[in-house]
Amino acid sequence: MYTNALLTDLYQLTMMQGLFFEGKHNQPCVFDRYYRTNPFKGGYTVVAGLEHLIDYVQNMHFSDDDIYYLKSTNLFKESFLDYLKDMHFTGDIYAMPEGTVAFPQEVLLRIHTTKDESLLLETAMSMIMNHESLIATKARRVRTVAGNDTLMEFGLRRAQGMSAGVYGARSAMIGGFNGTSNVLSGAKFGMPILGTMAHSWIMSFPSELEAFHAYIRQYPNNLILLADTYNTLKQGVPDAITVFQEMKDAGTLPKKFGIRLDSGDLAYLSKEAKKMFDAAGFPDVIISASNDLDEFLISELKLQGCAINSWGVGTHLITAEDSPSLGGVFKLVGQYDGDVFVPKIKMSDNAEKISNPGIKNVYRIYDRESKKMKADIIALEGEKFPTIKNLQLVSDKTPWRSRVIYANSFDVCPMLQPIFQKGKLVYHKPTLAAICDYADEQIQTLWPEYLRLVNPEEMWVQRSSKLSKLRNKILQEESAKFM
Amino acid sequence: MYTNALLTDLYQLTMMQGLFFEGKHNQPCVFDRYYRTNPFKGGYTVVAGLEHLIDYVQNMHFSDDDIYYLKSTNLFKESFLDYLKDMHFTGDIYAMPEGTVAFPQEVLLRIHTTKDESLLLETAMSMIMNHESLIATKARRVRTVAGNDTLMEFGLRRAQGMSAGVYGARSAMIGGFNGTSNVLSGAKFGMPILGTMAHSWIMSFPSELEAFHAYIRQYPNNLILLADTYNTLKQGVPDAITVFQEMKDAGTLPKKFGIRLDSGDLAYLSKEAKKMFDAAGFPDVIISASNDLDEFLISELKLQGCAINSWGVGTHLITAEDSPSLGGVFKLVGQYDGDVFVPKIKMSDNAEKISNPGIKNVYRIYDRESKKMKADIIALEGEKFPTIKNLQLVSDKTPWRSRVIYANSFDVCPMLQPIFQKGKLVYHKPTLAAICDYADEQIQTLWPEYLRLVNPEEMWVQRSSKLSKLRNKILQEESAKFM
Repeated sequence: MYTNALLTDLYQLTMMQGLFFEGKHNQPCVFDRYYRTNPFKGGYTVVAGLEHLIDYVQNMHFSDDDIYYLKSTNLFKESFLDYLKDMHFTGDIYAMPEGTVAFPQEVLLRIHTTKDESLLLETAMSMIMNHESLIATKARRVRTVAGNDTLMEFGLRRAQGMSAGVYGARSAMIGGFNGTSNVLSGAKFGMPILGTMAHSWIMSFPSELEAFHAYIRQYPNNLILLADTYNTLKQGVPDAITVFQEMKDAGTLPKKFGIRLDSGDLAYLSKEAKKMFDAAGFPDVIISASNDLDEFLISELKLQGCAINSWGVGTHLITAEDSPSLGGVFKLVGQYDGDVFVPKIKMSDNAEKISNPGIKNVYRIYDRESKKMKADIIALEGEKFPTIKNLQLVSDKTPWRSRVIYANSFDVCPMLQPIFQKGKLVYHKPTLAAICDYADEQIQTLWPEYLRLVNPEEMWVQRSSKLSKLRNKILQEESAKFM
Repeated sequence: MYTNALLTDLYQLTMMQGLFFEGKHNQPCVFDRYYRTNPFKGGYTVVAGLEHLIDYVQNMHFSDDDIYYLKSTNLFKESFLDYLKDMHFTGDIYAMPEGTVAFPQEVLLRIHTTKDESLLLETAMSMIMNHESLIATKARRVRTVAGNDTLMEFGLRRAQGMSAGVYGARSAMIGGFNGTSNVLSGAKFGMPILGTMAHSWIMSFPSELEAFHAYIRQYPNNLILLADTYNTLKQGVPDAITVFQEMKDAGTLPKKFGIRLDSGDLAYLSKEAKKMFDAAGFPDVIISASNDLDEFLISELKLQGCAINSWGVGTHLITAEDSPSLGGVFKLVGQYDGDVFVPKIKMSDNAEKISNPGIKNVYRIYDRESKKMKADIIALEGEKFPTIKNLQLVSDKTPWRSRVIYANSFDVCPMLQPIFQKGKLVYHKPTLAAICDYADEQIQTLWPEYLRLVNPEEMWVQRSSKLSKLRNKILQEESAKFM
């Protein structure tokens, strides 16, 4: 069996071998994971993927089959392959917990370990957190427009592969969804699973009414009837009313009952259906809808007064349709030459690709009274921002603007938590429910302006002056080489 | 251990149980898989995912853990769960082979089995083939503009999960790529794996030149030097020339050598670099490029006379960035009531969601002389289109247009092949190399007009008159119910 140790780019392994024979593979170094722009042209990113990453790191080892395959490529030497056989993670990882709201350039994860372990983990680590943070962010955008409606993840059949479906459903929960149709996600993560019937159920019976009757014989308590198979308003809704009335008369109507619409104009059909249900004495009917929904369509349908109070979101969520990748990167920010830590930057012809050097944390500034977030400072680990002094904010993106946050009006919270120490997991993994609660709290710290779908206010994120000085110094040294 | 039998939507399982207790689960029926529009606003779709689907179907069974989980949901009864324990696929599957070029509304796969098996397979089957066909199609679009340049799949770190990366790389090969950086895909599918070094390699050494020297000590035959870490034209290219010249002098320069550019303006930098290499006596240098490439950017860079002859395509390919889902669906097209086959359609308020009834195949009409494809006819299985008679084409989309294909000027090829018969695999799975050859041949049957990236010519796809009559008859019967 091949393991996920092979889930990497070839160059990681060729570089590892190169460093091994150059005697540099054991060099301790520090890498940061961060991203450069928010997905969906939005104002934030919801961090997710840490639990998956912890699993990956804990289980990362090469099997005999892996080694046998690598040998067959003729790219690797025996002594290096012997070395790989015993490799496992021995370093430290610090990360933002799942559900944290984050912003461009911020350190989401920092890893202190040997260079070869860093290389080996980079690809899978980036992939896992890029993917899951992306879907959690998309889900949160949907939640911000859906109010307290029920949100269901329905995307498995359009997901980009199995893991996209399974981990995507979990990420959707972190982004504020109520459940998924994906049974494997339910099993793996203890998530609520939801669903009733498809058109093929209706078509398995001589008539829609018979199909509804058959369904309630089997599931008298799971009563969302699919109403659009033949003709929503002429048949589906009247048939549903017939069934609900029969159950009401028999005293068996459950508290939650309703219909699902999967085609046609959802605003019009839901409003008309609601009128029919109201007239028939069923004002508490659930009207759920699916069919290529996303945050923009839900928002518009609501503006048009639709009567939908439960949404099944599939393709657009599970693929992050309008922005299907998060450009998270993993960059060397320093290494130890002997005992001396040497901060590093990645130079580039593209200005936005130049990284922040050194061992850093993100310090979040909250307004003490409103509990809302005011700014993030990317600073060297251990820098202090005493709350008893005024805090001067000067963004180096917009150095002509500055802000003072007055003493005793704010709190400071470092955002990275220790996850692994010397290869051992030291993080107490929260339950999914706890992660979802934390994610909700995190979103509450943002004013609505930052949550806007289009053209949101940009969060104030700046380097500390110490970090700026360090970065400029290294930039000058590097660029001096080409004068 | 949970198995992929749980990789399904909950409603499939609740419908299965419902049918089980209604005594309808064993009803033989036929489902079609097809899609409604080409992805990327393109002219075609490249079919992929069959091998993965075969694996899935062969291994599909419920483990004790699966059953235990399902029991814990309190949705399922003991006798149904006992029934699930022994379930495996017992039916027939017909499908287009991987690499086939397909068009909207065409039957890509047809499954004849009991209703409950169809339901159980629907979600995963759709997901697998939607995903892999999508990526193969995207890759083919890149191949159509890249000519004979080397194309490498580099997307793992931005993939939507592990399976997206692993199966996406395989799909890229079917779409015409030469290899991948993804080691696990290499191991699983016997694909070429490619790659050299990242910026972190360069930064692990005191200077770029030392990093290059270290690299060639280790990999004298795998010589693509990353040239943009510090300053491409002032340092990277001169350093590469220094190294190549040293090797040339020592007689150790391999046949393939070159640089990779990963930032900056790729057209300008590659042209300037090429001049420098030409002047230094290295006209055969490989200049490879990566950095958010897709078919449109490659096409534009080529128009601007870039000197790139090898492309690493990552994010945009592996996520199908501009069209990240393929809307393939799975619809009941008929069922047996006793011995009588009753064709079915799915009615809908959306016209394009109405399906084609009956047991069908796709008959492809090729011009006998040019071997190019002229049209596809979606027809009932077993319909004959004799090549010794004129063939009249009348599309029901555009009934005012018609075409005659003259007798003896065409050949007819049915596109579906038997894959499973009575649960047994009867298809001889081709090697990946054979699939890639077939995929190349398939593309050769299309005139370039159909391959255009933007606004391509639309392939002539029509229903046979027999199928049209059947469909209209059922449509009229169904709509009469609402008069």
